[in-house]
Parts: sequence; structure tokens; C-alpha cells
Amino acid sequence: MIRAGIYGVSGYAGFEVFRLLRRHPMVRIVFSASESGAGSSLAQLFPVTEDFRVVGFAEAPLDQVDVVFLALPHGVSASVARQALAMGVRVIDLSADFRLKDPSSYARWYKEEHPAPDLLAEAVYGLTEWNRPAICSARLIANPGCYPTATLLALLPLAQAGAVGPGPIIVDAKSGVSGAGRKPSLNTHFVEVDENLSPYSIGRVHRHLPEIEQMLHAFNGSIGPLVFSPQLLPVARGILATIYVPLAPNWTEGMVRELLVETYRLEPFVKVLPSGTVATLRHSVGTNFCVLAVTGVPEAGMVILTVSIDNLIKGAAGQAVQNMNVMFGIPETAGLM
Amino acid sequence: MIRAGIYGVSGYAGFEVFRLLRRHPMVRIVFSASESGAGSSLAQLFPVTEDFRVVGFAEAPLDQVDVVFLALPHGVSASVARQALAMGVRVIDLSADFRLKDPSSYARWYKEEHPAPDLLAEAVYGLTEWNRPAICSARLIANPGCYPTATLLALLPLAQAGAVGPGPIIVDAKSGVSGAGRKPSLNTHFVEVDENLSPYSIGRVHRHLPEIEQMLHAFNGSIGPLVFSPQLLPVARGILATIYVPLAPNWTEGMVRELLVETYRLEPFVKVLPSGTVATLRHSVGTNFCVLAVTGVPEAGMVILTVSIDNLIKGAAGQAVQNMNVMFGIPETAGLM
Amino acid sequence: MIRAGIYGVSGYAGFEVFRLLRRHPMVRIVFSASESGAGSSLAQLFPVTEDFRVVGFAEAPLDQVDVVFLALPHGVSASVARQALAMGVRVIDLSADFRLKDPSSYARWYKEEHPAPDLLAEAVYGLTEWNRPAICSARLIANPGCYPTATLLALLPLAQAGAVGPGPIIVDAKSGVSGAGRKPSLNTHFVEVDENLSPYSIGRVHRHLPEIEQMLHAFNGSIGPLVFSPQLLPVARGILATIYVPLAPNWTEGMVRELLVETYRLEPFVKVLPSGTVATLRHSVGTNFCVLAVTGVPEAGMVILTVSIDNLIKGAAGQAVQNMNVMFGIPETAGLM
Amino acid sequence: MIRAGIYGVSGYAGFEVFRLLRRHPMVRIVFSASESGAGSSLAQLFPVTEDFRVVGFAEAPLDQVDVVFLALPHGVSASVARQALAMGVRVIDLSADFRLKDPSSYARWYKEEHPAPDLLAEAVYGLTEWNRPAICSARLIANPGCYPTATLLALLPLAQAGAVGPGPIIVDAKSGVSGAGRKPSLNTHFVEVDENLSPYSIGRVHRHLPEIEQMLHAFNGSIGPLVFSPQLLPVARGILATIYVPLAPNWTEGMVRELLVETYRLEPFVKVLPSGTVATLRHSVGTNFCVLAVTGVPEAGMVILTVSIDNLIKGAAGQAVQNMNVMFGIPETAGLM
Repeated sequence: MIRAGIYGVSGYAGFEVFRLLRRHPMVRIVFSASESGAGSSLAQLFPVTEDFRVVGFAEAPLDQVDVVFLALPHGVSASVARQALAMGVRVIDLSADFRLKDPSSYARWYKEEHPAPDLLAEAVYGLTEWNRPAICSARLIANPGCYPTATLLALLPLAQAGAVGPGPIIVDAKSGVSGAGRKPSLNTHFVEVDENLSPYSIGRVHRHLPEIEQMLHAFNGSIGPLVFSPQLLPVARGILATIYVPLAPNWTEGMVRELLVETYRLEPFVKVLPSGTVATLRHSVGTNFCVLAVTGVPEAGMVILTVSIDNLIKGAAGQAVQNMNVMFGIPETAGLM
Repeated sequence: MIRAGIYGVSGYAGFEVFRLLRRHPMVRIVFSASESGAGSSLAQLFPVTEDFRVVGFAEAPLDQVDVVFLALPHGVSASVARQALAMGVRVIDLSADFRLKDPSSYARWYKEEHPAPDLLAEAVYGLTEWNRPAICSARLIANPGCYPTATLLALLPLAQAGAVGPGPIIVDAKSGVSGAGRKPSLNTHFVEVDENLSPYSIGRVHRHLPEIEQMLHAFNGSIGPLVFSPQLLPVARGILATIYVPLAPNWTEGMVRELLVETYRLEPFVKVLPSGTVATLRHSVGTNFCVLAVTGVPEAGMVILTVSIDNLIKGAAGQAVQNMNVMFGIPETAGLM
Repeated sequence: MIRAGIYGVSGYAGFEVFRLLRRHPMVRIVFSASESGAGSSLAQLFPVTEDFRVVGFAEAPLDQVDVVFLALPHGVSASVARQALAMGVRVIDLSADFRLKDPSSYARWYKEEHPAPDLLAEAVYGLTEWNRPAICSARLIANPGCYPTATLLALLPLAQAGAVGPGPIIVDAKSGVSGAGRKPSLNTHFVEVDENLSPYSIGRVHRHLPEIEQMLHAFNGSIGPLVFSPQLLPVARGILATIYVPLAPNWTEGMVRELLVETYRLEPFVKVLPSGTVATLRHSVGTNFCVLAVTGVPEAGMVILTVSIDNLIKGAAGQAVQNMNVMFGIPETAGLM
Repeated sequence: MIRAGIYGVSGYAGFEVFRLLRRHPMVRIVFSASESGAGSSLAQLFPVTEDFRVVGFAEAPLDQVDVVFLALPHGVSASVARQALAMGVRVIDLSADFRLKDPSSYARWYKEEHPAPDLLAEAVYGLTEWNRPAICSARLIANPGCYPTATLLALLPLAQAGAVGPGPIIVDAKSGVSGAGRKPSLNTHFVEVDENLSPYSIGRVHRHLPEIEQMLHAFNGSIGPLVFSPQLLPVARGILATIYVPLAPNWTEGMVRELLVETYRLEPFVKVLPSGTVATLRHSVGTNFCVLAVTGVPEAGMVILTVSIDNLIKGAAGQAVQNMNVMFGIPETAGLM
């Protein structure tokens, strides 16, 4: 049994980690920690039927676990990570603290000094399908953001294969409200979101942009600029991105689909839909799947990729558990099917 | 032209007052005030296309208006009301401050001393259809709560006519989220409300209960205890109450419907549906109408009243404007159709 | 391995049976049948990532299964049931065909002659928690309706214990739209349901009423008439019923809660919430749990029971699988946790 | 008073025409017609409080009206239009029958011969802000589709001014479900739409594409191909389009915004938002406004236009009434504010 601890269980991502680990056949949850919820039980924090004690950070028995999941605000995460690593505990960090390799990039996008630049070198970007060997032996995983997970799983095969032509790549992405976290704000107030659709941070200003481009450029340095338009949907969960990709000469819709099918043929959690269909939010919500579809627009020299994930599962907690499975050498699908 | 001022325009009810007065043919809005939004324009507070300056309370030119609408938290309202009355300005208060006639009842339900017990005597309960003569000449209107408006418009005719038999009356009421105000909280977070239905303060513990019973008992002192179950719906606006009323001997569904039809025959904003139909939320949302229907259950000696209002219009701002129309002797439907 | 077949897999309940059996560790799905969807794959009927062939009824290899689940319209179900029973296959029928013991009651409520009155005697009402011994040895299970499941799990303990006083019991029930089935109609059109709440068939006219009363009266013949108000919520799944129960003399809220706790202490799928809390839709959706809470209203001599289930799981497919588990002597929670 | 008749009042667009004309100070509705709803009253077709007789087409007194609004399926519309024109009645057609100038284009996109090619020459495309002179004197208005209205109001100023650079223009458009009409189908079933987002007919295959390009090319023949991705949102009303436009050399975000502001400075129903903001669905829903915003992406040589309309008002019935106002020489905002 893998002994696991969870920090930040009172948020949506942390609770989703709990939910997944709870039914994982090879994991025992040793503690669930939350500063704000310390001393309560899960049933007091969420409308659930199961009880589980929630402890403060100080009470969390770090010496009794093999791995911790950090579902904490950026900045806070790094200090808990350091403490855990010092005790020999492996860390899967769902915050943004270890995603950008360059601390100056972190400073620019997150408006504060990087809290642990010395740990950046060993942090492994946990996009499971594209980083397995490094994940296997990692002590510290930077679990990808939700938008980057969807975008990269769609684009990396094309970037790597040279299928992308010159010009901007447009990622028109729509997310459910749980992506904004559980802290109440006017932006997440029911009456403001209901029957609405709100673009925000569109263009090249959202914090997930450098994360996406860092990974894309690792595979293809000459790819055009990304235009990234996040939009808030009146749904609780899920991301659907509609991605407009200029094709390199001689590439066709059929070749792109074949490329995706080939790339992901053995992947348990990526599904490529057949010709003539598109991905919808519903395809993935409630699962750890990433669902992809390709629609050609030959008149414009483009393909449209539609890609769907559950932002809290494949986009956060599910991918974190998938990474844990890889790190501990157990079946990658354990607890996730 | 009636010169009006609005306090609390950054909340849902205050903004709805603004929206209604803005298209009212006989009203000029002199100021819109908000402490939190002072110095901004409406278009910065709400996604609207119109601009209107929002001032702080201190800047509001109270001496230039004939009437003020107070969409403020209870406690705060009373002090603004006192100030306005002192300057000869008529007051329509949408808070709870002047609804309960007995200051000790206020203290029990709102957990603080009544902020202006000396003004209670002259406050008129603004349930328009049932209090017109007093509203006409009132200086201070206590605009009814949303649940009480729906409940009383349904029950008062029966209470007055002696149609209610012994035993509890059950008001199973469901409200949209705007009823909870615009201040963000976990209870109004989209992810908590979406795909959910949450009873709260059920039984005899909600603050609207004494308001309802005070008015019912004014018409019929022997009516049974009310059981009142508010429930939060995943919609932005609207209240639907399903009310279970034990009938007095010899009363039938048909007689109750006829009673409602007769009572409200000349009312512009109350509609009684025909036999075999029920009220739905959609019947009233976006309007100042109260929609009523009667369904008999002879095997149980009961009728079920279904009643629907828009909580922000008939349940707040619309009824406030209706009261203003009555107070100033202009057509009651002005600005409301 | 239990070999199972599913009829009606293109509907919401049938598909939910599929989804549950698919992850059931002791079941192999031999066929999934649908007349309308014959020849397609599941991924053509639903936005899912898994493929499974859908066959017509004529192609379904009834001789190769141990049990069939019928998620079919009433009337159709009975004839498939007869055919299966004749081949020695056990039947779990999710339709209404075998729920009412009296064929004349069926004729009155379903407006047609009972299609198989000879099979009624051996049909066992599959309210698992209350009928385990009979379910164990049954060949034919009448799986309860969604509203009856919620209502009976809340009321049966009180009925049996004599806790119910004289007078009507009011069941104000709210259901998600999947309860209305997948066949398109104006009533299930998104634009009609969204931001709405619609009572329908309220009083004593809904088909689930005789089903509920038949079972209640089996435990307590003197219980008062039920008043049953179904209401359509703008959510996909879940039932929340708010039940108003007159108490017998000397019964209190605490005693009722204790009774429920005692009754269901060993039940894996019934959860009684602590004092001061209420059941919400979210408590049960996505699970096979029935969640119960008790709120006293001593001034009215009543308790309010709030009860929440997922209409497609505990109210249909989940309970069906639970019954299968009991019938085949395997752990009752298999495939359901 | 303008005497008006409405065909197709049982659908969402037809009913919205009714709702708007009903409060229009210079219009009298002479008849409301519907084949399916003939003989009923509006209150039987919609949950409304007002009654109005619905007649069959044969009973509609065409000789007593000045103008008719046709909210009918394409193909059907043309024959009613012919009949009305023959009697000297002016026609505002909300169907697609007269939008495409070339009957062979109609045949290609609508899969049938054009029903009235002889009337095409005199039909005027009713994009009010861009066709006023022709609308003034028109007998037959082809009221624009909902997506084309939003897209063209955003793009035409740029196309006309030469602000668009080479390369595809991408229109990522999201619509509420009322855009799909009131006829029940699996695509509009609440359970299928709720908590979902579904792209459909993406690329260059949606019927609104030729309508958009026909108008764009009338102003600028060299503009790049349009890529048009409609997506179904879980909301009842509203369209939000996010449009990615490559800029011609030397054009900047500021210049584009200034161009839009200048173009629409005197327009009562087009609002351009200030720098740093985006259009949301909520900006326009419930109004006849088109709300526009511009966000620059200089790194990609682009601007992103966000544009929001209410699909049933500015995208259908509201624009139809606006056109009627222009045709009859009354204030353009009459009945629409």
C-alpha cells in the first residue's frame, strides 16, 4: 500500500484527489489536511456521506507517508514541498510553483519571486503521456494546469511531427467554474455565471500561456505564437478547447487524425474520435479521459482540433494520481477507471 | 416628474429598482448610491450597456428628491430612512427594518436591538394589493420580503374568508439565488448551487416566518401554525411556493379558485390560472406578476396553492415601484408593464 | 461471473445499468439491446469513449445470460420478461409492469389491461433494504420507481414503528429531468426547463402514488392519505423530497432520527445525517446512497424528512444492480461503491 | 397605428415578435397565426399571463394588416410571403428564404430548389445598421440570421476600412439553445445540453456561412476565408462570438476600436466597450443591443473581437421590429428600449 497525504482537501482539486485515492485499491490515505477546515470532518466541508478527519498542516504526520499531494495556492505549495522532500516524501504539486522552469518567468507571470528556485531543476512536468520516464524516478512532480493539459495533449503530436504551418495557433478554450477554485468571489457567484459566458484574460495574458508554450517549444522551437482565449462556462466541470491550427504543406485532416491515433494508440486515457465527429464537454466529464477530434478546413489550410477533459480529473487530480501510479510502478490506470 | 434616489444600487434589488425606474415614464433618477461602488459607473458594476454615475452615501443629494428606495442591509436602512424622513423625503425601504411591528420580535429574529423603534408606528407594510389606503398616505413603506409576498398573496384571501381549516399550513418554497444577495459566499458559489437543491432554515426558523404570520394573523387570528421550508434552486430568479392548506368544512377547490378570482379580479398584477393548471416559475419571471393556481385534494381535505413571483420584481423592486405609484397617485402599472 | 443482458440501453436508465455493470467485478455484459439503436455502438448513442455493440431484441442471445435488466416502457417490459423467465433467465424489470400487485389497479393507473397478470404473484418488489429475503430467491424483480424509492426509505421506518399521527402526509418531491426519460418532448426541451420549476400531476394523480401507498399500507394500514407533488427541477439528475409527517403522540424529532439511525445502522447505502442538517440533492447524486435527515417542528406536531437519491442510480439502475447482487448471493455493494 | 400580423407565433422567434409588438406604442397586432397552435390561446402555448387568440393560417385576415412577420421554416415562408405581397402587405421574413441572393447557392445549402426565385431581386437584407436606405422602401425584408447579425456587425467595419490582413478569419461562436428552435429533438433535450458544450457544423459547413460571406464580400472582395465554429451552450438565449482577425499592416487595437466607435457612434443599438474589457453574453441578453469589444494581440498581428447579442432579439425578432420601424418611418427605437 502506498501511504498518501493530501494538503488542501477543502478545495475542489484537493477533494477530488481525496475522492480518487479513497477508491484506489493500492493507496491508504493517511491524512487530509486543510488550514481553514482543520478540526472538521469532510462531511462538514462537502455534502458527502463519508466521514474523514481533516487536520491542520501542523498535525499532518508527514513522517508516515510515501507521497503527498499539494492542492494549495501557488507560493504556499513550495514551502510544504520543501518540507516533505526533506523528509524523503515524494511530492505531487498541483499548484503552479514548479511548472515554469525559469524563475524569472515565474516572477513575471505570478508577480512574486519564486519561492524555491533551488528545487526547480529537479521538478518534472507531469504531463503523463509525454514525460513518463522522468516521472518514474521523480521526487517532485509539477502537475500541469488544466488548460495546458488539454491544449498540449492536442498540439504536441502536431508540433513534434512538423505538421504545424506558419502563423498563430488559436486556442479558444472554455472552462467550467470549478477551475476558478472554491474561494467565493463575484466571478463565481451563481447569479453572475448562470446563463452567461465570459471571456477573460484573452490574447496572451493568461498564466497558463507560458506553461503551454514552454512545453510546445521543447518539442518544436519554430511554432507560431499561441493566442489563448479562456472563457467561463455556466457549468461546474470540464474544459473544451477549440484549437485552430495552420497546417504545414501537404498535411491533411486525415493525416493529422492518423497521427493522433498513432501517437495515442496505447494510451489508456486518450481517445481520438472518428472522422465526422467532434469532442463535446460531456465526452470526458467525470472521467480521466482526454478526448480529441479533428475537423479539416482545407479552404483555410487548417485543422480544427476539439479537445475535452474534466478539469478536476485529467486536468488536476486524476492526472496527479496517474503520475503517482507511474512513480510507484503500479498499473497506470489503478483507481482511475 | 417624481424625483427618486436609490441606495444600494450595487446589489441585485437596488439595481432592479434602477432598471425599473429608468424606463418609468414619470420618474427621474436623481442619484444612485452605493458605499462599495462609489465613484464608479453602473457599467463597471454590472454587465450593462448604460452608464450612470454611482455616488457614495455622503454625496447623495437627498434634498433634491421626492422619494428614496433603500436596498440596504437591515440595520443600515433605518438610519438612512431617518435622515430622509427628516428632510421630508418619502421612504420605500426594501430591508427588513420596518416589517415587524413589535421591536422585541425584531430583536429576537434579527439578533440586535431595533435601530429605530420610534419609526415603527408610522411604517406601512407595503403589500400593495392589501394595503392601498395606508400606502397612499404613507411617508415610510416597509416593502415586504420576497417569500412573504408570494405566500401572503396566496393565503390572505383564504384566511380572510375563513376557508382555512384547523392544522398546520405548509409552505414549501423554492427560490432563485438572487434572493440571497450579491455578496459572494460559499452558499452562492456556482459550483455549490449548480445541479443542486438545498433546503435551509426549514420548519419555523426563517426570518420571513414572523413577517408572514404577523400579516396572516391580522386577518385571521385562529389560523394554524405555518411550516415554512425555503429551498435554494439552481436558477437566478424567481420563487415558486407550493402551499398545502387544510380546508374548512364545505370548502372545495372550485370555491377557493372562485374566491381568488373574485379577490383579485381588478388587480393588474395578480393572475389566477384556470382549473387543471399549475403555476410555474416561468409564469412570472421577468414580470411584476404574481401567478396563482389551485389544485384540490379532496381525499386529504386540502387544496394545494401554487404561487409564482419574480423575487426581484414583485418580491422586491417591482412591488416597491408599485408602492411608489400608489403613494404619488399615478397609475399603478406605470413603468411596470 | 454473472452473465447479464440489458434491454433498453439507449435510454438513460438502461445506459446507467450498462455503466454500472461495466465496472462490476463479477459481471460480464453479454449483450446490450435496443430496438431503436440496433446495429449501432454505444458511442453513437451517447458521448462516451467506450464502444459496445448494440443489438436488436431479436438478436439478443437470451440463452447465454443468467439475468436480464429491462429498462423498457411499461407494457413492452412484460412480454420480454415472460420470454426470459421461460428460458430460466432471472429478470430485473425497471418498468412499472410488476410493481402494483392488483391488475385492476394497473389498469386504472396505466390505462390499459395488465399485460401479464399471471406473473404478478411471483414478482417481488425490489426495495432492497425492505425485501431482502424475498429478493434472494426471486425470479422476477419489480424494481421500484424513483419517487417511491426515496419516499419509502424515508417513511417506512415511521410507518412500521407507529410514529405517524393522523392526518395527511405531504411529499413535496423535486426531480431532475432524466426522470422523464430520453424521448424528446416539449416538457424536456432545454429552453422550457432551464431557469424554471414546474409542478406536475400534483395531489393524488401521479402513477407513483399507488406504488407508494401499496407498500406503506403493507406495513401500516391506518396511515393517513398521501399528498404527492412531483416537480421538475432544472437539473439532469437527482430527487429531493421534503416530506411533512404528522407525529403520533409522544414522538419527537430525536426519537425519529434515532429510529432511522437504528433501522439503517447496517445498511451500506442509507445514510442518516446528524441533527441540525438537511439532505441536499448533491449529497446523493452520482452515488447509490439514499441520504436522510430529520427536522422537527414541535409547534406543528410534525417532523420534516428530507431525503435525497440519484434517480438513475438508487432510484433505478443502482438499486437494480443491488438487487442482482442480493439475488446472486454476492456482496451487496459490489460494483456500487 | 401599424397593423401587424405574425405567422409562426408558437415558436420562440415568433413569440418574441409578439412580445415586442405587444408593448410597441405604434403597433396593433391584428392576428397571431400558427398552424400547430391554431384555435388555442397564447397562454396554452407558453407559460404567460396574457391571452391572445391564435389562428390558423387560413383564418389570418391578411387584408387587414400593413405588415406581416414570418417566423416560419424555410420553404414555407416564401409561399406566405408571395401571398402577402400580392395583397400589398409588406413582409419581414425571419426565415432563410430570401437571404442568399443566388438561388443556386440556396439550392446547395438548403438542399432544395429555391421556392420563389422571382422575389429574390427585390428582397432587402435587413441588417438594419448597414442597409437603412434600402430597408426604408422595401416591400420584402430578409431578416438576417442570428450568427450573421453578430458576426457582420463586428466584421463589416473592418472589412470596409481595409483593416483585415491576409489569412483566415476565425469566428468561434457560441449560442443558446433557443437558436435551435422549439421543436423537440435529442439535441435540445435538457439532459443532453445541461453541463455540456457541443460544437456542431464547424469549419465551413454551417448554413449561415454563405450568408455571412455574401455580405462581407459585398464590402470587401479580397477578405480571407471564414472559419466558422458554432457551439451549443447550456443557456436559453444569447450568442457570444469570439472572432480572430488578422490585421492589415499598420493597424492596431486602438485603431480598430476607434473605427468601431466611429462607425456606430450614432447607432442606438450598438455599443462598443472600452479598452480592457470584453463582451459577455449577459451584456446583451434581454435587449436589442449588439455589444462589441476589441482586444489586441500584437505578437500575433491580430485583434480579437468579442461580440454579444440576444439571438431572439437583435438576432431575430428585435431586429425585425427595428426594420419595421425603419420601413414605416417611425423612431427606430420604438418598442425596443
